[in-house]
Amino acid sequence: MAASPGSAMTAPAGVVAVDIGGTKIAVALVDDAGVVHQRVDVATPRGGSAILCVVAELVAGVCSRAAVRAVGVGAPGVIDPVTGAVRSATDILPGWAGTPVRERLAARLGLPVAVANDVRAAALGAAHSADVREHRDILHVSVGTGIGGALIRDRRMVTGPHAVTGEIAHLLVPATGAVACGCGRFDHLEAVAAGPAIAAAIAGAAGAAAVARAAAIAGTAGAARGSVLPLDRVAGLPEARAIIGAAASVLGRTLAGLVAAVDVDAITLGGGVVLGIPEFAGVVRDAFQAEALPPLRTVPVLVPAAGPDAPLLGAAHLARRILADPVPAPRMEARA
Amino acid sequence: MAASPGSAMTAPAGVVAVDIGGTKIAVALVDDAGVVHQRVDVATPRGGSAILCVVAELVAGVCSRAAVRAVGVGAPGVIDPVTGAVRSATDILPGWAGTPVRERLAARLGLPVAVANDVRAAALGAAHSADVREHRDILHVSVGTGIGGALIRDRRMVTGPHAVTGEIAHLLVPATGAVACGCGRFDHLEAVAAGPAIAAAIAGAAGAAAVARAAAIAGTAGAARGSVLPLDRVAGLPEARAIIGAAASVLGRTLAGLVAAVDVDAITLGGGVVLGIPEFAGVVRDAFQAEALPPLRTVPVLVPAAGPDAPLLGAAHLARRILADPVPAPRMEARA
Repeated sequence: MAASPGSAMTAPAGVVAVDIGGTKIAVALVDDAGVVHQRVDVATPRGGSAILCVVAELVAGVCSRAAVRAVGVGAPGVIDPVTGAVRSATDILPGWAGTPVRERLAARLGLPVAVANDVRAAALGAAHSADVREHRDILHVSVGTGIGGALIRDRRMVTGPHAVTGEIAHLLVPATGAVACGCGRFDHLEAVAAGPAIAAAIAGAAGAAAVARAAAIAGTAGAARGSVLPLDRVAGLPEARAIIGAAASVLGRTLAGLVAAVDVDAITLGGGVVLGIPEFAGVVRDAFQAEALPPLRTVPVLVPAAGPDAPLLGAAHLARRILADPVPAPRMEARA
Repeated sequence: MAASPGSAMTAPAGVVAVDIGGTKIAVALVDDAGVVHQRVDVATPRGGSAILCVVAELVAGVCSRAAVRAVGVGAPGVIDPVTGAVRSATDILPGWAGTPVRERLAARLGLPVAVANDVRAAALGAAHSADVREHRDILHVSVGTGIGGALIRDRRMVTGPHAVTGEIAHLLVPATGAVACGCGRFDHLEAVAAGPAIAAAIAGAAGAAAVARAAAIAGTAGAARGSVLPLDRVAGLPEARAIIGAAASVLGRTLAGLVAAVDVDAITLGGGVVLGIPEFAGVVRDAFQAEALPPLRTVPVLVPAAGPDAPLLGAAHLARRILADPVPAPRMEARA
């Protein structure tokens, strides 16, 4: 559903950016100057069809108020770079694997639609942030309901032969997680340092009664901010500080090992846990520097100024790119 | 010291390949068909000057019997891609950091000299092996005195902004090593799965008396093969099998996590531990397949047919490449 031609003269113009997360879906209009307008956040429903239905409705809402040229979508899972369908996904979004995201949205909306993995979209947004733009080789790490990553090498997004490059959730860690990793194992990074793992560890340490009291208070505040990460409900408990610190430290140490293997100029951090817990990024940074090989200790660990808008700004880049080059070539690494 | 012009008509011709390892140095003539001649292995002496002295003497020996056009060297540590000097190195080779390998050898020998990290050289050799050549994106892993890696993406060796890409020794593992990693820590891959770590774990389990008896027998055999890896001395003990299996399994699981992050077509294995212990690669492969994400379970884990010659064949490639393109550009990723 494109905007009616008559409204294009006065209505705001740009592309629609969509960020589908394990917890919430964000949709906004992004104008050509990269300013985010009309942002709406809703809780992610269960199942591929329900998600696409909600996304299409929200995008149509933006189209009714603006001249929209294309839609860019960041979506969880391994996204086929040619078809824009979900090749595979872990249990974080049940019923998501196989969903033909691009095909369905393009048919429903009558607009060009570009789809990429949500963390890759966020990485694009982070890489274009004014305080990150000088770096050519970037590892972007997102910590939220899951842990994801994306690798930009020489300003190009690396996809890899299975389109999974940057999937850092399954790196082994010397710790046993409080919940299972998305793949079902317990000694993977995601089982220790993602939001649900941190929340479960805090709940385990604090006990059921304390968690129930804390959830009753924080639940309202969390809902008011549009966030339903269970971590919100327990992050204020006295046990939380040490557990959050331990998780951030394991992440920082893991990144030190990984950056030796992949070698980058900068690490950027994003995702609900990083943006929602002010001390998290600092602990990651300290642990990284303490663990890294000497030549890598100066690699900056940044929270880009784009912050919570990075996923939408990145999705907007995807949309603008599909307008410039509508037929993506198979296996081509995309310029960041 | 180039071969005398008169000898070029009848003597064999080619490039000299040098593989400097933590335990031994190998030098050979490699002809244009990729056949290895006149291979000599000697124990690695201590200190940068002593190593270069031994290398120069062995290369000069080959030059006296063959028409040599260039020298390719695989050397431990982070090698500056422009100067061919050792930027940094762990404690595996004391006194090695800072050694100007290319400058000194070129001055001593009067021949063009190309230097690259030893694991990268081995990766080049592995990637050109007939049974690997079809793959474009390869992670090469070497397990010997240390654990090293190299990443070939789209048939190009990836170096990265700090020239460390592929340095996998420092990935965290859910196990405490029997010896310290080259960087001094104990929960890094190298502290668990490299030769000295496996040997120390076996020795710890078997007890001092059993180790002394085994070393007295195996020491002679090891010396006869030109190998001084302490693992040779204890690999026959009854405790060895389970410990070697556990180390190989940790390596396979670690590679499953890493391959999700870097995404390749194939993993190739090399190094003294892989080539010296027939069952090692099979356990790595099984552990990799059991741990990997579903789309990555079919990534082959190969021991290339080039096997023990891979480091020399790769060093020969370096030498031929410097003849074709004598001025390496800074930061250029080298074609595999």
